[in-house]
Amino acid sequence: MSADTASAASLEHLKRILGEVADLKHAEAVLDWDARVSMPPAGAEARAEVSATLTRNSHERFVADDVGELLGELDGLDTDPDSDEAALIRVTHRLWERTRRVPSELVGEMARANGVAVAAWDQAKAASDFASFAPHLERQLELKQRYIECFPEIETAYDVLLEDYEEGMTTTEVVTVFDRLKEELIELVERRREDSADDQLLRGPFPVVLQQEAGRRVLEAFGSDESTWRIDETPHPFASKPGVGDIRLTTHTDENDLTSLFSTMHEFGHGIYEYDVDSSYARTPLGAGASSALHESQSRTWENLVGRSPGFWRWFYPQLQTLFAETLGGVDEVSFVRGINAVRPGLIRGDADEVTYGLHIILRFELEQELLAGSVSVHDLPEIWKARMQDYLGVEVPDDARGVLQDMHWAVGLFGYFPTYQLGNVISVQIWERAVADLGNLDERFSRGEFSSLREWLREHVYRHGSKYPPRDLLRRVTGSDLDPDPYLRYLHAKFA
Amino acid sequence: MSADTASAASLEHLKRILGEVADLKHAEAVLDWDARVSMPPAGAEARAEVSATLTRNSHERFVADDVGELLGELDGLDTDPDSDEAALIRVTHRLWERTRRVPSELVGEMARANGVAVAAWDQAKAASDFASFAPHLERQLELKQRYIECFPEIETAYDVLLEDYEEGMTTTEVVTVFDRLKEELIELVERRREDSADDQLLRGPFPVVLQQEAGRRVLEAFGSDESTWRIDETPHPFASKPGVGDIRLTTHTDENDLTSLFSTMHEFGHGIYEYDVDSSYARTPLGAGASSALHESQSRTWENLVGRSPGFWRWFYPQLQTLFAETLGGVDEVSFVRGINAVRPGLIRGDADEVTYGLHIILRFELEQELLAGSVSVHDLPEIWKARMQDYLGVEVPDDARGVLQDMHWAVGLFGYFPTYQLGNVISVQIWERAVADLGNLDERFSRGEFSSLREWLREHVYRHGSKYPPRDLLRRVTGSDLDPDPYLRYLHAKFA
Repeated sequence: MSADTASAASLEHLKRILGEVADLKHAEAVLDWDARVSMPPAGAEARAEVSATLTRNSHERFVADDVGELLGELDGLDTDPDSDEAALIRVTHRLWERTRRVPSELVGEMARANGVAVAAWDQAKAASDFASFAPHLERQLELKQRYIECFPEIETAYDVLLEDYEEGMTTTEVVTVFDRLKEELIELVERRREDSADDQLLRGPFPVVLQQEAGRRVLEAFGSDESTWRIDETPHPFASKPGVGDIRLTTHTDENDLTSLFSTMHEFGHGIYEYDVDSSYARTPLGAGASSALHESQSRTWENLVGRSPGFWRWFYPQLQTLFAETLGGVDEVSFVRGINAVRPGLIRGDADEVTYGLHIILRFELEQELLAGSVSVHDLPEIWKARMQDYLGVEVPDDARGVLQDMHWAVGLFGYFPTYQLGNVISVQIWERAVADLGNLDERFSRGEFSSLREWLREHVYRHGSKYPPRDLLRRVTGSDLDPDPYLRYLHAKFA
Repeated sequence: MSADTASAASLEHLKRILGEVADLKHAEAVLDWDARVSMPPAGAEARAEVSATLTRNSHERFVADDVGELLGELDGLDTDPDSDEAALIRVTHRLWERTRRVPSELVGEMARANGVAVAAWDQAKAASDFASFAPHLERQLELKQRYIECFPEIETAYDVLLEDYEEGMTTTEVVTVFDRLKEELIELVERRREDSADDQLLRGPFPVVLQQEAGRRVLEAFGSDESTWRIDETPHPFASKPGVGDIRLTTHTDENDLTSLFSTMHEFGHGIYEYDVDSSYARTPLGAGASSALHESQSRTWENLVGRSPGFWRWFYPQLQTLFAETLGGVDEVSFVRGINAVRPGLIRGDADEVTYGLHIILRFELEQELLAGSVSVHDLPEIWKARMQDYLGVEVPDDARGVLQDMHWAVGLFGYFPTYQLGNVISVQIWERAVADLGNLDERFSRGEFSSLREWLREHVYRHGSKYPPRDLLRRVTGSDLDPDPYLRYLHAKFA
């Protein structure tokens, strides 16, 4: 057997194992979607056990020695460094090195803890009762510390977590960018405090079925179809791709609030990124978006850069006005577009406008570091939350449901994830500037309901690559630049200052 | 360590492994439910791969040598033969012996073939195009032959399949019972050919949402609740219990047909059996109904013995009449009950009345044996189907969609399963006679909307035992008798002759 034939056999063997791991993760994704969309509540306890077992199984399969041996055989492989094969080996090797550091028992414990804590969080939020959630948060932090200890060579604890979502990004770099943003955002918020835009017109009533109809029309125009996409209602919207040909969005439609439409466009951005990944990467670690921030850049693109643009509404406002004639019949397009772009410091991250949003993230990023360092205790969290919301946004937090309990992330052990939301905003504008440079006036296209050229450009430059390139390499390939807050700040100043 | 302590440790160890296997099967059940209720159609191909991987994984985990060693250590255990522990060891040992005969590659292939064939069947049925399904059926038969070959010591091929659904039942025994039924059923059908009951009144229109409301009311009266149960629409109704606290029914509601209500009651019977299994059996092989026929006996109990009884309708008909005032306003209760009990030879098993139903099953039971023996070829199947439907029921089959393609069972590799439907009918009346002997007049209770005493009796005598007793032992415990068609025939004669 020649060296080439041996390598080809090793690669096939590796792909078979990766396919099996991907299948188990596919199953996990369906179970997770099911638990949030379909499962009767009494099923939660048994389900937590199943998630733990599946997570442990896929972990054990992946970290097994045979994967390491195959990677060893393939590492010396003489392939084009820009080839898919080289990328697969690189990405798999990095993931394998990181994953095998974590004992599968700990992985199972974390999965089980998530199932239990998210149920507790749900109840705690409904009752605005932080005390009942506190022990679960303590437990999650303890598990997270044990996880961090699996990487003793990484000096900054938070870097361990960040690396899971944003390869090659350090806490120091994020701090640098966020410090700059924080200053400018607080200033922008101050300058817009007297924003006269009327956003009461977004309070409805907007009958739920008609909002769902509006969402369907937008999704269709953006390019989804029923053979592959579905959308459901959940309290907390999310997007999921269990596998090829299966893209699932959720939204939360409230009669007194039009934001479900923006949330639908947001989740579409996640969905289309996954949908457009090269299908030859399916069932391998290349088959998903490059990083959390890259992913978020695309959800924010479709939600804000498209969905809050004047061109989009030139096309869609007449339809919306017809659907909601009673509420919007007397509101002209310009007032409506001003209304959906009003800057209003508020309590809830998910409802925040483009200017105040970043400050919600910066608050969480700071608190996560302090919780992990022990300089803030779980017990003190609600009060510190309230004090900082006052400092950053000048708002009074009336209860924990609208304060520290508002997001589910910490309940499901997501620490280190929040900053990628704001990095996503930064990156979205970097990529957008390139798209505009290539395609010219997008606003004009949107006003004709034409979104396919943007989508095609993004597919070609970003989506199809999946995880082939490390996120910062991909960013450089697309924009010619590393992470850079300037385009984002220019955008915000042009739009809001 | 004493022998007792060692055994206790072995039992705990075994239970841990069984729990893991049960978790993988829980995941499979959710994926299966999802594929039939939620999954976008384009996801089918990737999903088939995932099902194959999960099935193979749970199979491999279960047949591993350590399970055999633990069973070896536990076989000599000095426990009360009637204890749960003894039952767990017995049931697990039997299952392990059977399961390990089958190579996990074959198990994976069968799971994948099911995913592919069911999609092909779906399209073939829609187009009434048997030829496009034929290669998939050939493939399923070929896989089934390979499966049968894993049990060379079992002389009758069909016995291998039957044993999977009905422990301890032989083909010869089924033939004996079915030959007797066939003769009497054909005669009964003949005698009722001039049945004057008006079943046109069941053709509606019955608006879908109102039928769903009727179904909800009945389920609630029977004892389901929203924390644990859900019901969805699917083309082919089924019931599923992924795990404790999670019971899922489906139904198919057609505006021109009231049968969705009976199908809902049917699936409730499956659901309540699973719901009421002793929760200490969860995540072990004891934690499900005792056999397919026992299961079916309970779905038929709730569908027919309860749901087509005069007492039930004394309670529910006024409500139904109010819901469907336009269609049923002028129909009195007695005519309605006669209508829903009309005997009408028809094409579709799922729509068949209590008398003709058995003949649909006997046809399939005979064909399965002939297909496996090679005395009937896949190619000839549609014509033979048509000829026998003429012989047994005197009906003309106009196309394959309403003929050989009507059921999905063969597409998902279910051979040997159909006879358990008719055995279920037989057993349902055997158990029912005991319940009536203990509880007295059930009809009078039903007429007050009181179903809890029947349900409680069934829980106590049947449901809670799960798979603790072999099905025929359980039947003897409950009824004092082995399988016996007499009560069933008495019931049919009393009701229909």
